Amino acid sequence: MPPDPSVLLLYSLYLVAIVAEAMTAALAAGRRDMDWVGVCVIACVTALGGGSLRDVLLGHYPLSWVAHPEYLWMTAGAALLTALGARALRRLRSLFLLLDAIGLVAFTVIGCQVAQQMEMPLTIVLVSGMITGCAGGVLRDVLCNDIPLLFRSELYASVSAVTGGLYLAMYGQGVSASVSVPVALLVGLAFRLLALRFNWQMPKFVYRGDWH
Amino acid sequence: MPPDPSVLLLYSLYLVAIVAEAMTAALAAGRRDMDWVGVCVIACVTALGGGSLRDVLLGHYPLSWVAHPEYLWMTAGAALLTALGARALRRLRSLFLLLDAIGLVAFTVIGCQVAQQMEMPLTIVLVSGMITGCAGGVLRDVLCNDIPLLFRSELYASVSAVTGGLYLAMYGQGVSASVSVPVALLVGLAFRLLALRFNWQMPKFVYRGDWH
Amino acid sequence: MPPDPSVLLLYSLYLVAIVAEAMTAALAAGRRDMDWVGVCVIACVTALGGGSLRDVLLGHYPLSWVAHPEYLWMTAGAALLTALGARALRRLRSLFLLLDAIGLVAFTVIGCQVAQQMEMPLTIVLVSGMITGCAGGVLRDVLCNDIPLLFRSELYASVSAVTGGLYLAMYGQGVSASVSVPVALLVGLAFRLLALRFNWQMPKFVYRGDWH
Repeated sequence: MPPDPSVLLLYSLYLVAIVAEAMTAALAAGRRDMDWVGVCVIACVTALGGGSLRDVLLGHYPLSWVAHPEYLWMTAGAALLTALGARALRRLRSLFLLLDAIGLVAFTVIGCQVAQQMEMPLTIVLVSGMITGCAGGVLRDVLCNDIPLLFRSELYASVSAVTGGLYLAMYGQGVSASVSVPVALLVGLAFRLLALRFNWQMPKFVYRGDWH
Repeated sequence: MPPDPSVLLLYSLYLVAIVAEAMTAALAAGRRDMDWVGVCVIACVTALGGGSLRDVLLGHYPLSWVAHPEYLWMTAGAALLTALGARALRRLRSLFLLLDAIGLVAFTVIGCQVAQQMEMPLTIVLVSGMITGCAGGVLRDVLCNDIPLLFRSELYASVSAVTGGLYLAMYGQGVSASVSVPVALLVGLAFRLLALRFNWQMPKFVYRGDWH
Repeated sequence: MPPDPSVLLLYSLYLVAIVAEAMTAALAAGRRDMDWVGVCVIACVTALGGGSLRDVLLGHYPLSWVAHPEYLWMTAGAALLTALGARALRRLRSLFLLLDAIGLVAFTVIGCQVAQQMEMPLTIVLVSGMITGCAGGVLRDVLCNDIPLLFRSELYASVSAVTGGLYLAMYGQGVSASVSVPVALLVGLAFRLLALRFNWQMPKFVYRGDWH
């Protein structure tokens, strides 16, 4: 019996996504004057860190890159190629943002499915999706000594929540994965691209108290 | 048979503590102009991160918020209410510091008990209590891009060590939990409040060498 | 049957290494004006954090310091003695750099062996060695709010990769551990000391794009 088409779709998007995340992470490392080792480490952490954190928190062993070491070579290789060809890539900004958005929604749905297979409660399934989608970027920013971008701007986490929530709502209604996965991916992707196009932002909480 | 009263006491203080930690974390996030997502993430990490790090290091699965997803809603909800009502909360500084101190000592005793149930050696039981009590604040400071406050001032870690040590000393003498838990909590709380009142500090190690 | 001499060698070097790493970490903490608690925490994290991260990622429980709590006392004690005697230690710069280099190569080989015992694929064995050798310093820099030194200069990670690769190459050729371990350690140590002496650096990737 062939696998469900949604499995193939997600797996393909996963491979695209880890390569795309590795490439954008390499550019972030370049802005900090890191050497080649730093570029590779930042790329692997960004691309695979969200899933790794999810697996460690849920006790889901082995981690994906331990079971599939080729993911490490793919992300490190993509990062090094990016460092070599950064000048040429500058024109591809839109393509990168699209790939990055695909990564966000694909990671989110994959993270939800991992927790579903572990028969976790609904809240944890959603949180698992959001950790998988967003935590890699947070780890990248911590290692680059920035305040994580996730917490300051853009609708990254909101897009992840909407994608995961929509997928879970359809799942709860008995919609098959071959429908719910592409629908959740497309709606999440559209939301992300609209947020980027119109610069949507979450309201900020600004507080100037003098005690901790 | 009804549960030991010390269990109910600790559980109640635990719920108070995670809400209080979430509220103070929300104020820290507000000082960094984070958006609502950031406020919720910082709150969850601060309130639940110490216990999560303990569980991951000791291999104690499932993590508490995975088994009790309602903790995530409580901390995120408390953080959002804090962001909405920050102006009014400014007058409640003393209450917050008290709740934060309760959190520190309650987390510490709970962390010791988790390691005791896993039959860990004594050093690890104490370290488990200190990680549970203190690591959430360290994670908050790392995500806010600060040098962790724990390492620079206040007697946070020392209070945690005294609370855990006292609890373990009484345990070693065969004192029942219904006595040792409240005594350790009260002594630790008094130590913390005195340290805050009189601004006690640990000696600092200042070094100005030019090599790493 | 007595244990293989390479086991005794590695174990001795491991103890030397965690003490040496704790001492250099204490000096780093002193440059940030940390108090005694901070000095102890930074020392434990630096000396034992690489191995702990490896064990958490590979699901290798219990962690080494949980099974051997005395490691915590050794590292914390070495850090406090360093803080007390920092003035006198200033003249011992060369000795520290040598001990630090021994730690790097010993940690790397130990990390490879842990993954080998878990029958991990070759890439993961090498990555396990590099995480064990390098991640402690990265955690130290994150807690001290620096951009990790690993990513910006020195051949730390490259030395770790060469040491681990050489050890694995000899292992693959059937060379016994009593030969391959000391050879890999010596070559790695020589590489590190030459890199320090002649200030070898990895090429840097400098990128000044304005988008993330």
